[in-house]
Amino acid sequence: MTEAQRARASMRDGRWQGPTVYKVPGFVQTNLVVLSQDEVYEFLVYCQRNPKPCPVLEVTDPGDFEPRQSAPGADLRSDLPRYRIFRDGEQAGDVANITDLWTDQSVAFLIGSSLSFDDALLRAGVPLDRVWVLNSNVQTVPSGKYKGPLVVTMRWMTSEQAVIATQLTSRYPFNHGAPVHIGAPEMIGADMENPIFGNPVEKIPDGVTPVFWACGVTPQEAALRAKPTLMITHSPGHAFITDLRSDQICIP
Amino acid sequence: MTEAQRARASMRDGRWQGPTVYKVPGFVQTNLVVLSQDEVYEFLVYCQRNPKPCPVLEVTDPGDFEPRQSAPGADLRSDLPRYRIFRDGEQAGDVANITDLWTDQSVAFLIGSSLSFDDALLRAGVPLDRVWVLNSNVQTVPSGKYKGPLVVTMRWMTSEQAVIATQLTSRYPFNHGAPVHIGAPEMIGADMENPIFGNPVEKIPDGVTPVFWACGVTPQEAALRAKPTLMITHSPGHAFITDLRSDQICIP
Repeated sequence: MTEAQRARASMRDGRWQGPTVYKVPGFVQTNLVVLSQDEVYEFLVYCQRNPKPCPVLEVTDPGDFEPRQSAPGADLRSDLPRYRIFRDGEQAGDVANITDLWTDQSVAFLIGSSLSFDDALLRAGVPLDRVWVLNSNVQTVPSGKYKGPLVVTMRWMTSEQAVIATQLTSRYPFNHGAPVHIGAPEMIGADMENPIFGNPVEKIPDGVTPVFWACGVTPQEAALRAKPTLMITHSPGHAFITDLRSDQICIP
Repeated sequence: MTEAQRARASMRDGRWQGPTVYKVPGFVQTNLVVLSQDEVYEFLVYCQRNPKPCPVLEVTDPGDFEPRQSAPGADLRSDLPRYRIFRDGEQAGDVANITDLWTDQSVAFLIGSSLSFDDALLRAGVPLDRVWVLNSNVQTVPSGKYKGPLVVTMRWMTSEQAVIATQLTSRYPFNHGAPVHIGAPEMIGADMENPIFGNPVEKIPDGVTPVFWACGVTPQEAALRAKPTLMITHSPGHAFITDLRSDQICIP
């Protein structure tokens, strides 16, 4: 049994319901989006058109809850620590298991997450204690009813670290890849006054270089604007841990 | 007008109907697959599951013949030099224009091609005069009715060049990326006796390292086995020239 399999087993039987941040380093973690078969084609095309925020690592067949490519044997209905339910685009609570909501029409999307490259950044000495999730005014490429702004993560570092972080994350094209912007939040309309995650920021301190990456919250926001009857995602910070090793799917 | 736009204009008005190999170096060239809207979902999932042979660079909206992301203003019904028509999985001739076959249900897939990294290989001194397209016994990951063997390209080089070629092509994850195999054709069941392209090979000569990449013919083969009513592709070697520059979509 690998560390990833052990971690999933502890989530399946309810022993672990906490966040997966920094849990089982070295294994690829993914965001989850579950939609009904009749709503998925335009969403899949939306992801294809926006590969930086929406790098799709796996799509399951309708009704199949096993991610056969990235974690054979796993059960996507129970192997995440926490799920978030949305009905008609409105939050409808968090749960630890979605077996009763799963139907033979359910399709799961596993979408790359920056939790996979954070480990590489830490090993290279890039600090991750100052991270935000922000709306921007950059528009994604629409597909049918799926559209909306690019959501970004912001990390604060020195300008030397910004170069290293750019080099390193470029190697992870299936986990958001290289930054979308370095330096000036106003150029991408990053809304630092109303962060999605993190405390409001008035001004970037001297000596700090803010670096921005496309964020996996983007496809969730687009899907919510489309108001699907039922959508299930992971709860923020509570991702799916695959059997893929980060070093296997990165570019040398 | 860029070189790519000029090349496409000469194809649109029929002045150029020849192959695009080595034409307009530095611009990304893609394979084309056109299917009807009711047959595309499983095909798009097939591509997602097999990103090495089927890296999708763009999917158009049903009926839309303009590749808005990769070549705004282009017309996919006329801007390739030659198209191949398939009806119920059987070849039905080549044409220079598909405007009369295009409907409001037509969806075009632009799929990355190794023609995009060949230029980088040549600049690095890797010869491309000995190239084959071969069937293998490696199976792709199926999606609905789309399935079949991985088709590979084989290039002959020295073992030193094989290292350089691996490094270079790794930088093009959206154009087949790194090799799928180096060295022993029998380990992937490469059928050198019955090549799809190139002359039959009895034995690899001493001092030659054969290097194998996933090939964009793979999704065409899978689509043909699925026997769609009407499928249109580019004619082999007659690809679509985008406005994207190869150096822009590669990893540094």
